[in-house]
Amino acid sequence: MSLPETELSSIPMTRQLADQALGFGTPDVPDDVREIGRHCLLDWFSVGLAAWDSPPMQALRAWIALEPSPGPCNLLGSPQRVSASQAALVNGTAGHMLDFDDAHLPSRVHPSAPLWPAILALAQARRLSGAEALAAFAAGVQVQSRLGVVMGNSHYREGWHNTATLGTFGATAAAARLLGMNEEALCRAFGFAATLTGGLRSVFGSPAKPLHAGRAAANGLMAAGLVDQGMQTFDDLLERPRGFVQVYARDFDPSRIQPEAGSWEARRIVFKYHASCYGTQAPIEAALALRDRVARAGCRRVDVHVEPQYMSVCNIARPTSVSEAKFSIAHMVALALAGRDTSNEENLSGSALVDPDVVAWRDRVHVHGDAEVPRANARVTLDDGKDRVTHTHDASQPQADLKQQRRRLLDKSSALLRPRYGERAVARMQERLLDIAQQPSLTDWLHDTVLELDR
Amino acid sequence: MSLPETELSSIPMTRQLADQALGFGTPDVPDDVREIGRHCLLDWFSVGLAAWDSPPMQALRAWIALEPSPGPCNLLGSPQRVSASQAALVNGTAGHMLDFDDAHLPSRVHPSAPLWPAILALAQARRLSGAEALAAFAAGVQVQSRLGVVMGNSHYREGWHNTATLGTFGATAAAARLLGMNEEALCRAFGFAATLTGGLRSVFGSPAKPLHAGRAAANGLMAAGLVDQGMQTFDDLLERPRGFVQVYARDFDPSRIQPEAGSWEARRIVFKYHASCYGTQAPIEAALALRDRVARAGCRRVDVHVEPQYMSVCNIARPTSVSEAKFSIAHMVALALAGRDTSNEENLSGSALVDPDVVAWRDRVHVHGDAEVPRANARVTLDDGKDRVTHTHDASQPQADLKQQRRRLLDKSSALLRPRYGERAVARMQERLLDIAQQPSLTDWLHDTVLELDR
Repeated sequence: MSLPETELSSIPMTRQLADQALGFGTPDVPDDVREIGRHCLLDWFSVGLAAWDSPPMQALRAWIALEPSPGPCNLLGSPQRVSASQAALVNGTAGHMLDFDDAHLPSRVHPSAPLWPAILALAQARRLSGAEALAAFAAGVQVQSRLGVVMGNSHYREGWHNTATLGTFGATAAAARLLGMNEEALCRAFGFAATLTGGLRSVFGSPAKPLHAGRAAANGLMAAGLVDQGMQTFDDLLERPRGFVQVYARDFDPSRIQPEAGSWEARRIVFKYHASCYGTQAPIEAALALRDRVARAGCRRVDVHVEPQYMSVCNIARPTSVSEAKFSIAHMVALALAGRDTSNEENLSGSALVDPDVVAWRDRVHVHGDAEVPRANARVTLDDGKDRVTHTHDASQPQADLKQQRRRLLDKSSALLRPRYGERAVARMQERLLDIAQQPSLTDWLHDTVLELDR
Repeated sequence: MSLPETELSSIPMTRQLADQALGFGTPDVPDDVREIGRHCLLDWFSVGLAAWDSPPMQALRAWIALEPSPGPCNLLGSPQRVSASQAALVNGTAGHMLDFDDAHLPSRVHPSAPLWPAILALAQARRLSGAEALAAFAAGVQVQSRLGVVMGNSHYREGWHNTATLGTFGATAAAARLLGMNEEALCRAFGFAATLTGGLRSVFGSPAKPLHAGRAAANGLMAAGLVDQGMQTFDDLLERPRGFVQVYARDFDPSRIQPEAGSWEARRIVFKYHASCYGTQAPIEAALALRDRVARAGCRRVDVHVEPQYMSVCNIARPTSVSEAKFSIAHMVALALAGRDTSNEENLSGSALVDPDVVAWRDRVHVHGDAEVPRANARVTLDDGKDRVTHTHDASQPQADLKQQRRRLLDKSSALLRPRYGERAVARMQERLLDIAQQPSLTDWLHDTVLELDR
């Protein structure tokens, strides 16, 4: 829906969004939403740390090092402490570097990527509690998700990276909460968010993509911080003529800004358990569900049915690099059926790509586009010539069993980090992160958590 | 012109822009272009310094002070030295705060606002010479101006602030030159510029507008700096499908990226001599040209003819505040005819607004929209009942006489700064700034220039 300017400007979206961010107290966050926040923190921290020594992170850290700004905030992978802005930028980029972080599919935003780096930086700088941080996370998810629903498909379609643009609003909301700002002030901070943000989808496939997440986090701190220091701008930049909504989307639906009563967008967050494209997640899960069957009998042929769009995105038949393997349904399904770890990038490169066992499976995989398979779903059929077993997996649905989700995320975290940090250090780090709600101040808690890894 | 993606992506705009920034040596800059660069520096520094103590600057400086980053770079209005990024952000915002800085009308970019803060910060950090800084300025003007011509009217019309968006490319080009980068690297840096920038025109009228200039400067340093440290992205982000040009403009003309041989966009820069809206500049100039006539005879009536668009922009008949006076052709023309200083905001507020002499002139001014008067022009007629004298001024054309331009800018600078810093300190500062070309290193030169003012 594209509204005339007068009608658009009569809908107070900026205020409604501010109300969603600030209209609940820290104790009002339901237990399951808090638990999901902890999962997001653990997962975000783990995938960010796993990317710490990658070449783009080295370049970014070298650039930051040219302008030292000592402060109370930790960088993920070192005991060094820097200013909030620098920590948000660097940690935010790290968390999205492997493209292995959480997702909120309806808004196309990776929720933790802009939020946790901003929240942790501010919580360290201001000695805030873990409970406040978890509430800020819930608020940030709410804001960026609802704005995503308003912006509809056209925002992404026209070329914007939602995690960059909408994530800036989420980070602004989270920061405003932690700074104790009121709704009027947050409305102005959303104005700065609207005019500070950017992020083109055309950089996907380059390290400028994860940089967007770091920028969204740092921009959020800036937008809230400037208003907190008294800088002024208008308080209706979402609905204003030629404001954010109109300039950044061609079709939009302001009526969808309000969620259903009592709903929390954090409950829609999904996680990746396999180090590859989202379109490969459901085929891998379906293959894993059928793996026992493979052990009992032979298997001549594997048919994978996915939504047709994935045929052009992740159907590389014989990958020759990590990048290609991430977009190869055949390779990822073969890894799963051969019992290899799909959460570890080591199985996506080098000798793993020509491992005879994996290759034998890979050659049996046939991928089909199927218009009846909805997004993020897949149907996998194993066929031994006589018997056929089929399993369908829907990767768009969050896990109902949060205990199982926690276990799986701990396994993923361990697989990512044990080779570098050792089992005991990783276990201690995981325990500390999941204990965040008990912390009266995150200033030294996060520092000590990072220090554990450095020992 | 809106091209199909395949045709668009076949035109190497990114490379052509990089070539314009780096394809000439420091000694190749013509003398007049260097002189214009000095004028821009003097003017930008003066209007920035005049805004130093304004409330938005206080808020911005308070926010920066939360994250101290000591470095070699000066803030305009204090002897404090900070990192290049912080200096670029703060000084860049100051320079555009009064909306009294230079303009390149064909591109709608304020040329110095994103460029000088980035150039001075980098020159201080790297001990670069004044001649190199002037060449970087010429390169930055070239890049942002030609990109503006390509983007056409639709970029601004759809809601973007050209000084923010295109200025980021100019600052990136200037920084790349000063860092000694080659064309391949600058193409990638333009990619970061494309994905880091933003800036909505809907914030005009609030301090978020001048903040755009500071951000463009800081973003330019970041884009060039990240690539200089080895960060990668694509080298065709202007022409890439859903790249900068396609996402940020609906109509564009890639064929206009190339300038005529030997042309320098810096030669099109115009200055404001009156502290008010651009639409009031030509009426004031025309009135000044007729002022002698007023002294000789009576004047019953003043008719001002301007382009019709200005009737809704700057035709406030009886202003009651500085903001309104800036948009009052009648008040500004009255000030000029009454012999008051139009470059001084003090004549736009308080008792000056009800000064009987000024009011008497103001009541005689009649403003008319006239479709035959082109943009930034005005025709003013003084009429004493018997005689009529008419003068037409074109404020879109740069001054041909650079000596006169220098004199006028020195007068403007003095009028802005003498009340705060005193005549001698201002004269010393002006002399030092105009002597930039002789400096082998700007590191201490700028520091000492700022220090002069602090004595």
